[in-house]
Amino acid sequence: MTFELPLRVYYEDTDAGGIVYYANYLKFAERARTEALLALGFSQTELRDRLGLLFAVRSATIDYLAPARLEDQLVVTAEVTALGGSRIDMAQEVRRGDTVLARCRVTLVCIGADARPARIPPEVRTALGGLLPERGFS
Amino acid sequence: MTFELPLRVYYEDTDAGGIVYYANYLKFAERARTEALLALGFSQTELRDRLGLLFAVRSATIDYLAPARLEDQLVVTAEVTALGGSRIDMAQEVRRGDTVLARCRVTLVCIGADARPARIPPEVRTALGGLLPERGFS
Amino acid sequence: MTFELPLRVYYEDTDAGGIVYYANYLKFAERARTEALLALGFSQTELRDRLGLLFAVRSATIDYLAPARLEDQLVVTAEVTALGGSRIDMAQEVRRGDTVLARCRVTLVCIGADARPARIPPEVRTALGGLLPERGFS
Amino acid sequence: MTFELPLRVYYEDTDAGGIVYYANYLKFAERARTEALLALGFSQTELRDRLGLLFAVRSATIDYLAPARLEDQLVVTAEVTALGGSRIDMAQEVRRGDTVLARCRVTLVCIGADARPARIPPEVRTALGGLLPERGFS
Repeated sequence: MTFELPLRVYYEDTDAGGIVYYANYLKFAERARTEALLALGFSQTELRDRLGLLFAVRSATIDYLAPARLEDQLVVTAEVTALGGSRIDMAQEVRRGDTVLARCRVTLVCIGADARPARIPPEVRTALGGLLPERGFS
Repeated sequence: MTFELPLRVYYEDTDAGGIVYYANYLKFAERARTEALLALGFSQTELRDRLGLLFAVRSATIDYLAPARLEDQLVVTAEVTALGGSRIDMAQEVRRGDTVLARCRVTLVCIGADARPARIPPEVRTALGGLLPERGFS
Repeated sequence: MTFELPLRVYYEDTDAGGIVYYANYLKFAERARTEALLALGFSQTELRDRLGLLFAVRSATIDYLAPARLEDQLVVTAEVTALGGSRIDMAQEVRRGDTVLARCRVTLVCIGADARPARIPPEVRTALGGLLPERGFS
Repeated sequence: MTFELPLRVYYEDTDAGGIVYYANYLKFAERARTEALLALGFSQTELRDRLGLLFAVRSATIDYLAPARLEDQLVVTAEVTALGGSRIDMAQEVRRGDTVLARCRVTLVCIGADARPARIPPEVRTALGGLLPERGFS
């Protein structure tokens, strides 16, 4: 299952080139990850307050295929591509209609209060499995 | 009539104080103004491309009453308080439930390609009247 | 004495109107306040870690007089206009050469870990006095 | 030669996790690229106004090794790793003292007013060569 978040481009997102500033696609991606977690029943503030856990970004790769512009209505997707003990790999896209504007791969690590990798809690792991692409008989 | 835009607080909006960064309330306010205009049938990009007109902020005053936090679900309002030939005065609030977190007054001026004040087009003026508070018999 | 911080306008600061986005002037203002405090010998992180104190913005008023543009070299000023028990009023300007682009008034309140107003520590108060305009014989 | 831009971390750069928000490292990287070009004698606004040319980011990869925090004094580097007809590959780092906090690879493409790849002007190409790492006798 792929999570999809619709969002609008506002002035704050654009730059003097007349298009969405390149760093802001990572903001869009993070919004979709946060909403995906919330849709699965998990609040990051609740995980932090109750278990002292945080998801930190370890790496991000983004390909810019076509620019988004002011007032565009976009969709940002979030899909889990691999799930380790404390690590989540995600693939995300920013789309306008059928056009993919940006493709992004993000690796997150679950960390504890000591900033060291911590195991993703079982209930979060199970829920995140819902964002894995369908795998037929595997 | 007061326009209301719901929005979520994401990591990008917060700062190391654990609350929404003070400048970002102006981003929230601008999102609500853009959506209010769109709801009234006016696209700022369309006004720019067709008529060469832009709404520029001339002044903004904001009172911070209580902080917003990560994952908060907020509502941002937009109301027109005065409408001049080229000028729009707006009152806006950022609320979480019944709590007003910030109150903002913004003055916008319609400007042409030469950056000088220009008359607000009649159809925009009429539509913006829909954001004026009810005025009884006046 | 008026503190002055030079800064450059980058793509991140601009919007599709080709000018600096209106909320970002508040970022510039905050940078100048932080650097002014550091120049006076006070680190906000140190005040927070050692004394649990924070400076929260209570209100901000900003007048936009002329737009700043990409790659502009600006100067942002910071001056204390009034100093109360827990409150600081500041006047700030964003200038390009001799042209004032924006004028800003900010009220800050020193708050403790309980988010309630706290007295500004004496050594900070004394230092902030250095940002008060010269007052002749007073 | 590697270009180095010193910069300070302000509240605007941080998030509720107490560290610099992950997207903002791309802002830091862009600041260093802009200053590197300016140091080499090229203004992006001047290239746009005179030749209609823009540098668009085609892809970015960033590894987050350690977090930056409020008031940190950082250095952001910019180095050209490959130079094609219309393409520039750059390697950038964000450092605090001797610690590398983030490593970034960015591919830029020179585009014309029609948004299609355009040849990098000879004088810019020559100057950018100054950001290539030293190559001994080659």
